[in-house]
Amino acid sequence: MKKNVLIIGAGGVAQVVAHKAAMANDVLGDIHIASRTLDKCQAIVSSVLEKKSLKKPGVIEAHRLDALDIEATKALIAKTRSQIVINVGSAFINMSVLEACIQTGVAYIDTAIHEEPEKICETPPWYGNYEWKRRERCEKAGVTAILGAGFDPGVVNAYAALAVDEYFDTVDSIDIIDINAGSHGKYFATNFDPEINFREFTGVVYSWQDSQWQTNKMFEVSRTDDLPVVGERTSYLSGHDELHSLSRNLDVPDIRFWMGFGEHYINVFTVLKNLGLLSEQPVTTAEGLEVVPLKVVKAVLPDPSSLAPEYEGKTCIGDLVKGKKDGEDREVFIYNVADHKEAYNEVGSQGISYTAGVPPVAAAILVAKGTWDCHKMVNVEELPPQPFLGLLNKMGLQTSIRDENGERDLSFEGWTPPATAIAGKVAGKR
Amino acid sequence: MKKNVLIIGAGGVAQVVAHKAAMANDVLGDIHIASRTLDKCQAIVSSVLEKKSLKKPGVIEAHRLDALDIEATKALIAKTRSQIVINVGSAFINMSVLEACIQTGVAYIDTAIHEEPEKICETPPWYGNYEWKRRERCEKAGVTAILGAGFDPGVVNAYAALAVDEYFDTVDSIDIIDINAGSHGKYFATNFDPEINFREFTGVVYSWQDSQWQTNKMFEVSRTDDLPVVGERTSYLSGHDELHSLSRNLDVPDIRFWMGFGEHYINVFTVLKNLGLLSEQPVTTAEGLEVVPLKVVKAVLPDPSSLAPEYEGKTCIGDLVKGKKDGEDREVFIYNVADHKEAYNEVGSQGISYTAGVPPVAAAILVAKGTWDCHKMVNVEELPPQPFLGLLNKMGLQTSIRDENGERDLSFEGWTPPATAIAGKVAGKR
Repeated sequence: MKKNVLIIGAGGVAQVVAHKAAMANDVLGDIHIASRTLDKCQAIVSSVLEKKSLKKPGVIEAHRLDALDIEATKALIAKTRSQIVINVGSAFINMSVLEACIQTGVAYIDTAIHEEPEKICETPPWYGNYEWKRRERCEKAGVTAILGAGFDPGVVNAYAALAVDEYFDTVDSIDIIDINAGSHGKYFATNFDPEINFREFTGVVYSWQDSQWQTNKMFEVSRTDDLPVVGERTSYLSGHDELHSLSRNLDVPDIRFWMGFGEHYINVFTVLKNLGLLSEQPVTTAEGLEVVPLKVVKAVLPDPSSLAPEYEGKTCIGDLVKGKKDGEDREVFIYNVADHKEAYNEVGSQGISYTAGVPPVAAAILVAKGTWDCHKMVNVEELPPQPFLGLLNKMGLQTSIRDENGERDLSFEGWTPPATAIAGKVAGKR
Repeated sequence: MKKNVLIIGAGGVAQVVAHKAAMANDVLGDIHIASRTLDKCQAIVSSVLEKKSLKKPGVIEAHRLDALDIEATKALIAKTRSQIVINVGSAFINMSVLEACIQTGVAYIDTAIHEEPEKICETPPWYGNYEWKRRERCEKAGVTAILGAGFDPGVVNAYAALAVDEYFDTVDSIDIIDINAGSHGKYFATNFDPEINFREFTGVVYSWQDSQWQTNKMFEVSRTDDLPVVGERTSYLSGHDELHSLSRNLDVPDIRFWMGFGEHYINVFTVLKNLGLLSEQPVTTAEGLEVVPLKVVKAVLPDPSSLAPEYEGKTCIGDLVKGKKDGEDREVFIYNVADHKEAYNEVGSQGISYTAGVPPVAAAILVAKGTWDCHKMVNVEELPPQPFLGLLNKMGLQTSIRDENGERDLSFEGWTPPATAIAGKVAGKR
C-alpha cells in the first residue's frame, strides 16, 4: 500500500486531480499540490475545502515548486512523505519530475508526453526520445512509472487493450476519435494551454499505418462519423502521444488519432499558422525586441481554466476498433461521453480538464492498492484495463460500447485477475 | 524658385519619391534621402543610379536621421541647403519634421496625417488635433506646408476640388473609392506599414454625413460598384485622413471613404482583431515579457516593399461625385488606374507605393516653380487642382473621368490661373 500524493501543476487538470484525490483520501492519504505559482495551488486547496471534497478529515496543502529543479522536487517528496507523484504540470517538466521519482523510489504518473520547448513533432516513437530511455532504471529501482494516464493518452489506451483482450481475436485497425461538442461562448479559445495545444498541430502529423509511420499535414485527411450523443462530427488525422506506445505494445497494423474541429477553429488556426504566429521560433520586432509569436498568441487568448463557468455541451472520446472475432468481421466503438456543466458543478473545471484529470487519480488509487503497482515503467495499455475502467465508472467517467447489439454501458463488476497472474504482479501482463 | 529636396523616410513610397524627384532634378536640384536606417537610404540611392533615373548629372545622397530629433533635422536641412522637405516617413514623425521646417523656413510636404503611437482614431477632425494647431505659425513665418499630398489623401482631394470647380453648381456627395485589384501572391500582406495599415481599421470609423460626423464599425457598411477597368468591386466604409479636411474646406454634406477588401483580407483581419492581436496596447507573456501584439504581427508579415517584384494587376482610385449642374442631377467619377507591374518596372516599387509617391513630387515641383508655393499651411483641396493633375498626367498618373458621356482621359493643357488670381498667390484660392 502506497500513500500520500504529490500533485505537480496547478492548471485546470490539476484542479480536477486535487478534487478527485481528495474524494479518495481514505485510500490516498495526504494531498499536496505544488507549482511555480503558489497562489494557483492555494486557490485549488480553497476550492477543495469549499466544495467539501475531502472524503475524510485530512491534509491538503499548497507548495511553491520549480519542478525543473530535481533536488527541490526530491526534497518536497521527502518532506511530504509522498509515495505517489501525479505530474499534471507543463509537458516540459516530465523528465525532471520522473528523475526525482526514480531517485526517491516513489511512483510516477503523468498524462502527456515530455516535450522540449524548442522542438516540435520529433522522430517517432516520441516516447523513445525521452521517457523510455529510463525504462531500465525504473525496473532496476523497482519504481512504478505509468506514462500517459489521462484520457487520451490514457483511457483510450485502456479501451484499445480491452478491445484486443475481450472483443477480438485479431485487430486490423484502431481509430481513436476525440470530439468536443461543447461550446465555451468565446470567439476563440483552446481547451488547455494554447502553447501545448498548437504545438500538436503545427508540425508533421504522424500516424501508424500498414505497421509503419506515415506522415501527413494537419487538416489534410478528415473523416465524418455519426457518433453516440454528439451526432455527426468531422475529425482530422492528427499526431498524438498514444500512437507512439500503442504501435509498439499492440500488434495492430493501423492505429490513428482523429481530433474533431469546427470550421471556425480551423479558420483561426489556419490564419495564425500561415501568418507565422504559431511559431515557437523567436522573431524580432522593428524596435529590436526578440519574442516568440506563439507566446504572444497565448497571452491574448483566454486562460483555459476561465472557460469552465460558461462551458456547455458534451465530449465524446473513444476507440473505433475493427477486426475479426470467431472468423467474422467485427466493429466496436468503446467510448465515454462527458458533460462540461456537470464537470464544473462537481469540481469547478470544464469537461476537457475533467476527462484528463480523473484518470490519473484512478491510476493512483490502483497503484496505492497494489493492483497497478507494477514496479517498472509502463504505458497504460500494458496494464489490465478492467480495474481501471471499472474504477472510472464509479468516479464519473462511464465506459460505453456500441457494437452489433447497439449502445450500452459496460460494467466491470466481478472482474478478477486472470489465474495466471501472480498477486501483486497483475500489472505486468503484457 | 525653391530647390534642393530632402526626402525623409526610406520605405516603398520613399523609393518612388526618390526616383520621381531624380527624374525632375533639373527643377528640384539636389536630392537627399534620410531615415533612421542609413542602409535603406543607400539602397534607394543605388536603385536611382542603377535605373539612371537622374534627369541630369546631380547630387543624390543618403543620410542617417532620427526625424523625431528636431535639431538634427534642422541641421540636415541647413547642411543640404534643402528648401523643400518631402516627409514620407512614419506617421509618428510629422509634427517633429514640420517643426523643423517652420523653424528653418523651408517648405513642408507630407502624404499622411500625424499619429501618436498609443492613440488611434482620435476625435475628428484629426488635422485639428495636430497639424492645424500650427497653421498660424506657418502663415506668420510664410512657410508653405502642404498636408496630405499623396494619392488618398492628396490626388482624391484635388479630384474633389476639380468636381466642385468645373463639373457642378452644387455637390451633394463625394464618395472616395479605393480599390486595389492587384495580387501580390503571398498568403497575406499589407501594402504599406502593417502597423499604420491596421491602425486605420481597428477603431471607430468616422464619416461625414448630413454635415456631421457619424460613427460606424469597420466592415459594417459596404457598397458594390462596377468600376472602370477593375470591374465589379465591394468596398467598405472606412475612416481616412481626407474626410477631416474636405469636410471643413468644401461645402458638401456627405463625404465618405470606401476601401476595397477581398473576403480573405477581411477574414484574416477579423481573426487577428477578435483575438486582440491588432492591439496597440502591450500584453504580458507567461514569461513576463511585455510586448505590443500589433508589433509582433508586423514582424511576421512580409515587408511591404518586398511585394513589388511579384505584384500584378491594377488599382482604381477615384471620387464618385453627385450633385446638380444647370439644374440637372449629375454623377461623375474622376479616377486613376495604375498598374503594379508598370510601377515596378519604372521605379522598383508596387502600385500602391507608386500612387502614393508620385503626387508629393508633383507637389514639390509646383512649389519649386511657385505655382503652389502658397506660404501657408493648406490641404490639397485648397490649391488649384488643374496644374497638379496636369503634371501628374505627364508623370505617370493619368486622370480619367466617367460621366454621362462615357469614360475618357482628362487633359489640363492650356489651363491658366483664373484672372482673379494674383501672380504667386494662385495657391490661396479658397
